Amino acid sequence: MDFNKENAGSTSKQIKLQAGVYLIGAGPGAADLITVRGSRILELADIIFYDALIDGSMLAWCKSTKLVPVGKRCGAHSSSQRFINKQLVDAASNNLVVVRLKGGDPLIFGRAQEEIDALEQAGVYYEIVPGITTALAASAQLKQPPTSRELSRTLTLTTLPGRCAHPDHKTAIYYMARDQLTEVASTLLAQGYSADTPVCLMESVSLPTQRSFGCTLDELRFGDVHHYFLDKQPVVVMVGEVYRKKLQMLTPLLESQSHFNVLQAVS
Amino acid sequence: MDFNKENAGSTSKQIKLQAGVYLIGAGPGAADLITVRGSRILELADIIFYDALIDGSMLAWCKSTKLVPVGKRCGAHSSSQRFINKQLVDAASNNLVVVRLKGGDPLIFGRAQEEIDALEQAGVYYEIVPGITTALAASAQLKQPPTSRELSRTLTLTTLPGRCAHPDHKTAIYYMARDQLTEVASTLLAQGYSADTPVCLMESVSLPTQRSFGCTLDELRFGDVHHYFLDKQPVVVMVGEVYRKKLQMLTPLLESQSHFNVLQAVS
Repeated sequence: MDFNKENAGSTSKQIKLQAGVYLIGAGPGAADLITVRGSRILELADIIFYDALIDGSMLAWCKSTKLVPVGKRCGAHSSSQRFINKQLVDAASNNLVVVRLKGGDPLIFGRAQEEIDALEQAGVYYEIVPGITTALAASAQLKQPPTSRELSRTLTLTTLPGRCAHPDHKTAIYYMARDQLTEVASTLLAQGYSADTPVCLMESVSLPTQRSFGCTLDELRFGDVHHYFLDKQPVVVMVGEVYRKKLQMLTPLLESQSHFNVLQAVS
Repeated sequence: MDFNKENAGSTSKQIKLQAGVYLIGAGPGAADLITVRGSRILELADIIFYDALIDGSMLAWCKSTKLVPVGKRCGAHSSSQRFINKQLVDAASNNLVVVRLKGGDPLIFGRAQEEIDALEQAGVYYEIVPGITTALAASAQLKQPPTSRELSRTLTLTTLPGRCAHPDHKTAIYYMARDQLTEVASTLLAQGYSADTPVCLMESVSLPTQRSFGCTLDELRFGDVHHYFLDKQPVVVMVGEVYRKKLQMLTPLLESQSHFNVLQAVS
């Protein structure tokens, strides 16, 4: 492997789509938040294996391509990983341009390692195209940098409600924690984060159904809040002092249940 | 501000370029690693203020646009932040579609807060378009997820050689630390990271001049290694057990100086 030249600096003219597997990050949801490289490969692919969270408008670009849904969605049953691996290897072995399209970035909590291992083991040519991970898209929607020179020069991305945050109580962004919010809050409070640390929660980031809420760590601990979210929609949880100014602009989470249906109606 | 609907789910047909400022992440370097949304706005912009690290091939897309270089490059002198803010506000006030193009993601160590504050204060309409941050692009090039269920379910992004990493010694990725590598290593070792913790360093991520090196934390501590890199090129430093397998495939950092010129010649 030559990491120094591989994939580097390719542009549309240089893309020669070798048969093989292209692990592509679809980004957070909105179709136009995929990279230009990713979109070009999608257009040229023979077959696309896609996650359940991929928005239909992105797949609409792929006119003459075979589309195979394989993804998992918030724990719902779907194709087993081993079967996905086999399908990828088989398709690439048939000299096809195969896309494996994953939500967000394929390597950030995307469970890509098993697929990478299977492709390496089978000696299949593959490339990885990064995607906008949800934490960055949520920050852009919120218009709030997760780090600042004064408050936090460190950002932690995690899926883990347990011991996970920074010892200096810096910004932490949680993925896939919507059903463990009370545990997230309790753990951070136990680690010394102050009770009034601001928390922003964003559901369905970048999609027309996107909703944002604000609360404090203390409120998050005592509100049984995961019911406030729509079924099966991912929620990203942003915790840290950098969010204090945004807090007053956001819908307070603990008052949100009353106008939940109104929000659904307008979105 | 309505965070719930704002910017969400826009596609090419829906993009109506309101006069104002579009803070866009250019991604790590390669022109086609910008988002589709970002590229479309670039094409339609009246004026683009861009960082020094932006690759020329991306700006080549902007045919009839006024291009204004304003960025800083590894500390080199450039337009003062206050002057940049004023230019952005003035251009938007003249009813122009203004792009502020920043390397990577605008909100990850992108010093966007001052520009955001200036735009808010002036009441200028603005949007933020996320970009692929260098840590994710480097992971894609290395084909190595920074987290894994077994070794690390937490990823820390930081610029800080000081107390910054995770108490459980999980994956940490450093930005802008190329001149502080010895300090990074010493601090992590003092925090209990083992001496043989793998380190991957990647220079000019995604560009044709990209180079990757591997070493251990102990080697990083004792090698005066920042001289090994090309002047003014950004270097991302990835530390953690997840990189162990990659280590043997990478050019050993401490042997790299001897074939430095060879690498320059082929890239």
